[in-house]
Amino acid sequence: MSVGIVETQRLVVTDTEPLRLVCGAELAHVEVAYETYGVLSPARDNAVLVCHALTGDAHAAGMHAGAAKPGWWDNLIGPGKAVDTDRFFVISTNLLGGCAGTTGPGSTDPATGRAYGLDFPLLDVADLVAVQRRVLDRLGITRLHAAVGGSLGGMQVLQWALEEPERIERAVLVAASARLTPENIALSSVARAAIMEDPDFRGGRYAEHGVSPRHGLKVARMLAHVTYVSDTALRAKFGHRRDSGPGDMRLTADFEVEHYLQHQGTSFLERFDALSYLYLTRPMDYFDPFATVAEREVGTRFRLISFDTDWRFPTAHSLHIRDCLAERGIAVDHTEIASPWGHDSFLLQPPGYHDLVADHLAR
Amino acid sequence: MSVGIVETQRLVVTDTEPLRLVCGAELAHVEVAYETYGVLSPARDNAVLVCHALTGDAHAAGMHAGAAKPGWWDNLIGPGKAVDTDRFFVISTNLLGGCAGTTGPGSTDPATGRAYGLDFPLLDVADLVAVQRRVLDRLGITRLHAAVGGSLGGMQVLQWALEEPERIERAVLVAASARLTPENIALSSVARAAIMEDPDFRGGRYAEHGVSPRHGLKVARMLAHVTYVSDTALRAKFGHRRDSGPGDMRLTADFEVEHYLQHQGTSFLERFDALSYLYLTRPMDYFDPFATVAEREVGTRFRLISFDTDWRFPTAHSLHIRDCLAERGIAVDHTEIASPWGHDSFLLQPPGYHDLVADHLAR
Repeated sequence: MSVGIVETQRLVVTDTEPLRLVCGAELAHVEVAYETYGVLSPARDNAVLVCHALTGDAHAAGMHAGAAKPGWWDNLIGPGKAVDTDRFFVISTNLLGGCAGTTGPGSTDPATGRAYGLDFPLLDVADLVAVQRRVLDRLGITRLHAAVGGSLGGMQVLQWALEEPERIERAVLVAASARLTPENIALSSVARAAIMEDPDFRGGRYAEHGVSPRHGLKVARMLAHVTYVSDTALRAKFGHRRDSGPGDMRLTADFEVEHYLQHQGTSFLERFDALSYLYLTRPMDYFDPFATVAEREVGTRFRLISFDTDWRFPTAHSLHIRDCLAERGIAVDHTEIASPWGHDSFLLQPPGYHDLVADHLAR
Repeated sequence: MSVGIVETQRLVVTDTEPLRLVCGAELAHVEVAYETYGVLSPARDNAVLVCHALTGDAHAAGMHAGAAKPGWWDNLIGPGKAVDTDRFFVISTNLLGGCAGTTGPGSTDPATGRAYGLDFPLLDVADLVAVQRRVLDRLGITRLHAAVGGSLGGMQVLQWALEEPERIERAVLVAASARLTPENIALSSVARAAIMEDPDFRGGRYAEHGVSPRHGLKVARMLAHVTYVSDTALRAKFGHRRDSGPGDMRLTADFEVEHYLQHQGTSFLERFDALSYLYLTRPMDYFDPFATVAEREVGTRFRLISFDTDWRFPTAHSLHIRDCLAERGIAVDHTEIASPWGHDSFLLQPPGYHDLVADHLAR
């Protein structure tokens, strides 16, 4: 069952005051793209916030009119699904810094009339959360039944629940991290170098020059994609199959896994912006909420889920979150799910995963 | 102790006949850069061939006059070292397809008077070995006391020992593979895409245009470098140290691990050619000697070494080689060495590693 045809909506969250960011800068105009599914109860106590990962958007469930594919978490959200829209009012917002309707580095700076480019201020995960908080304020939701997110989405949920636990009853973090490893940072750094050192990046003003760092962004995505899947998954899906016959060789794509990566890289160019890629990967590198958010009494009940083949944010990251929460006396459960699909498992449906989400929301 | 000052020498190996490659193409003129250390015994029975990895060269040990750093395997090769030059006559050649003295895609095609570029024929690991064989022929060495190599170097040793075991008494394969995984191929494919899709690649004719795909080659190296080290090593070396203070952020390199990667990428541009990078990564993807080299009686005694933190060619690759050799009734020993340094461990000296090499050469 699907939530059916949906539409992305927009609202301005700086109508009463500018948004002051962690870095000290202020944004005078922030618009947010969001979607909602299900019906808010009269008591306003059934709201579930869904936080998207690096390259997600507000369109988490249902179909846009005329579209070929549903939202990115449609297998999780809908009538009778783990995040049951017969029961919950689900809100999904596009992140600050994104490129799918919410204000980001590609938006027009009202102060200059030009796109921000690299003049857009650097973002902290706390800033992403601050914008979502304003969206909920506008929708009249003071307390969430739950907040749910995978990868960077889970990092937002963690930040929020530590900052303002009285507002989130249940937190679900899937394949998340509270602190990237040097290797994680290194991999993101290569992706950013691919973009920023592309001659067509033009210091971030590529749109004004009618060009785009397509080469760099494609390579960044291909690299990232390898880290989102697992060797197990690639073996199962592609094995060593290739176009060329025995004794034949070529330098360009030949193995099926190469064609797949080429497709991933090229199709990404149609849906994502290079500046947003920079601005949304970087907050992950600096993320360290157990060091930056002061300890306080937290009533939120946490559910952590990780996947055994995830090598981008392996189970050790979830265990670290579990230990840090336990140290603060916060209620937390963690389960490692067996899945061949690596980090991407959070978008898929390996056995047991969705049941854990449903159970936690029902507690 | 070092072998002292050494010089790279060159010889032509196509003086009697052109080199016919696995792909069917012929090279009329192949020149090979090589170095030797130690003295060949009157019986010519103390020769050890050293095979280099992807970005190595003939300069494996000793110092070039005026140089700041010794050869890449100087910790292994020298008087009293694991490959003892008081006892062995060591030969090291730059690979066919390389860019450090041996004929490769950057060399002049005698048929056209221009650089080969992408007209250079595709290479098989068997071709790399065929060139080394000719070098040994010219040096009058019919039988090797041992062949030793790490990573792609180990793959050459494996190819050779399976093809012509009567010529190699002992084989040492360090951090090698007999068959890349789809993930290995995917990572190399991203690196090649970074180079070939760089606008300055100019279809491989960049040198004629006075440019170079520097952006792509740098990204390729940065990416590869992340896969050569381990998270353990990066944690130990850099941790989360960064230039910026608390609350400060930047998109460009800030964490020490980022500066390190930038340095690795930039310095690589001074010493390696983009075309050679393509031509020497690709043979690894197609490498499958247990499928392509017919089974025959092999007298070579194999020693396999892998490292517990190597995630480019993890121990599973060495176990696969061990099992395939054992199935053919070939004598083989394998040891996994504990080392924090990942794939790069084969160039370093984790405890126990060099002793295993020395012991095998002494058997």
